[in-house]
Amino acid sequence: MKGGPTVARTQGGFELKPYFDTRRGTIDRALITYLNTSNLEDADIITAMRYSIEAGGKRLRPILCMATAHALGAREEKALPVGCALEMIHTYSLIHDDLPAMDDDDLRRGKPTCHKAFGEATAILAGDALLTRAFQLLTEHALQQPAGQHGQWLKIIAMIARAAGYEGMIEGQMRDIKAEGMALTADQLEQLHRLKTGALISASVEAGALIGNADPNAFKKLEEYGRSIGLAFQVADDILNEEGDPEIMGKAAGTDRLHQKNTYPALMGLNAAKQKAIDLVNQAVCSLEIFDNNSDPLRSIARYVIERQR
Amino acid sequence: MKGGPTVARTQGGFELKPYFDTRRGTIDRALITYLNTSNLEDADIITAMRYSIEAGGKRLRPILCMATAHALGAREEKALPVGCALEMIHTYSLIHDDLPAMDDDDLRRGKPTCHKAFGEATAILAGDALLTRAFQLLTEHALQQPAGQHGQWLKIIAMIARAAGYEGMIEGQMRDIKAEGMALTADQLEQLHRLKTGALISASVEAGALIGNADPNAFKKLEEYGRSIGLAFQVADDILNEEGDPEIMGKAAGTDRLHQKNTYPALMGLNAAKQKAIDLVNQAVCSLEIFDNNSDPLRSIARYVIERQR
Repeated sequence: MKGGPTVARTQGGFELKPYFDTRRGTIDRALITYLNTSNLEDADIITAMRYSIEAGGKRLRPILCMATAHALGAREEKALPVGCALEMIHTYSLIHDDLPAMDDDDLRRGKPTCHKAFGEATAILAGDALLTRAFQLLTEHALQQPAGQHGQWLKIIAMIARAAGYEGMIEGQMRDIKAEGMALTADQLEQLHRLKTGALISASVEAGALIGNADPNAFKKLEEYGRSIGLAFQVADDILNEEGDPEIMGKAAGTDRLHQKNTYPALMGLNAAKQKAIDLVNQAVCSLEIFDNNSDPLRSIARYVIERQR
Repeated sequence: MKGGPTVARTQGGFELKPYFDTRRGTIDRALITYLNTSNLEDADIITAMRYSIEAGGKRLRPILCMATAHALGAREEKALPVGCALEMIHTYSLIHDDLPAMDDDDLRRGKPTCHKAFGEATAILAGDALLTRAFQLLTEHALQQPAGQHGQWLKIIAMIARAAGYEGMIEGQMRDIKAEGMALTADQLEQLHRLKTGALISASVEAGALIGNADPNAFKKLEEYGRSIGLAFQVADDILNEEGDPEIMGKAAGTDRLHQKNTYPALMGLNAAKQKAIDLVNQAVCSLEIFDNNSDPLRSIARYVIERQR
């Protein structure tokens, strides 16, 4: 965010950029591998699925999932397949959100949106296919784990389905559409944001916590962390849409205002929205108090969530 | 199918109509219950999900799943949750197929299609939500089973995801769209049909077989049965689109010809297509030779698949 109040920095020399860059590379390679393992030799739909996956993005959800597992002393790689499934779900939601019947966006991450590149029918199917592939990946990966862990894996998958579905992300998107041009209260807007973006970000943290076998208290703290950064992310997104650089974001700015979307800047003004984002991030960092240095990436990611330029 | 060759009748007094009617009632009630269990008090998207689920339909996939479990001596109810998940996946695929960017259909089962009733954005989301709900239902149901069965349940869910996704139904739909106005060979058409409709029908039978703990030979025979009726179903669908009664079907006839779709009647003529459907059903019934009377419903369903009027 440009100007205004700033977030408290934690100690330590943790460097977020190289941390993100190496993980992004690992995640990108894994995603492509997972899309290349179709039993069908010449699946047509894969081209469009891969196009949207390869358009890049922050890979925030897989990184969060891996960083949370790491905070609990588990190997990051243990969380990689789940992280990739979360990224597929996130990407499908973007493809469908960009459709003419929804937000009608032409650009995403600086490239033509999926329906602009392949047509609407293919974009709808590519989204459907990424969502389905996510659950295929999750269940096939779970099957490769020791039998004693199958129950834990079912729990992870059920939790992700809940977060992505009609009790989470999809309902949030539905409310977002219905609220266009209507004035929401602060409570309604918070609930909408918690569903639309928060649910899947929280699920990324909670999946990492389950993979890292968090005890109940650690799980509760990580859940709090996830809820705080989930909402902070969407507040920051609202602010970016208002004052971000379209060149860096790879998409147009000011579209929320144009569509009379309910946003934090619209509801409370730009500076108050920035303060809210900072408060949420400070809350998130506080939730990590009980963890050791292994949770430094989570602390840095919390700050990144509101300091990012795209 | 009207006129032309007929399929060999098996012996026994099994009555399909009352069999279907009671199961349909059970399935319909279960589907509504599963949609009413959201943790969110006032989810907006549920109205559209329920609308399409309540539009009815044959409930062929859940009935197949339950009948297959029964053929192996298991209680039908054991397969009910999986059957409901399969029906949710089927219903989502119909909602998305009906969209203006896809088949652009106004009527489905005699009622306005989901996007006609609720608008395109809601219809896209309702489809997404039904697909996600299916995987939530499957994993939550699996979690309620004894720990020793969790692996078997993961296998069932992975198999369904494969059948519904880019190696199955979605790729079939993609090829169907791409092939409009192009002449496919008989092999290409068969492959398309096996993916588009066959995969999920086969998965319904295979899920029932896994729930009923089929031994490898029984599983192979049921797999053959599923493949045969899966293809027979689509051949019959092509024939119905050509000569069915729009009143009974609740949708327009002749639309395939209008859109220059690749169909069996178009490829080989109406009578040869009817003979093909009958051959497939006879093959399906032959695959059941090793099973006892408990498989009578499966035999009757095989005939129903091509004798149905809608």
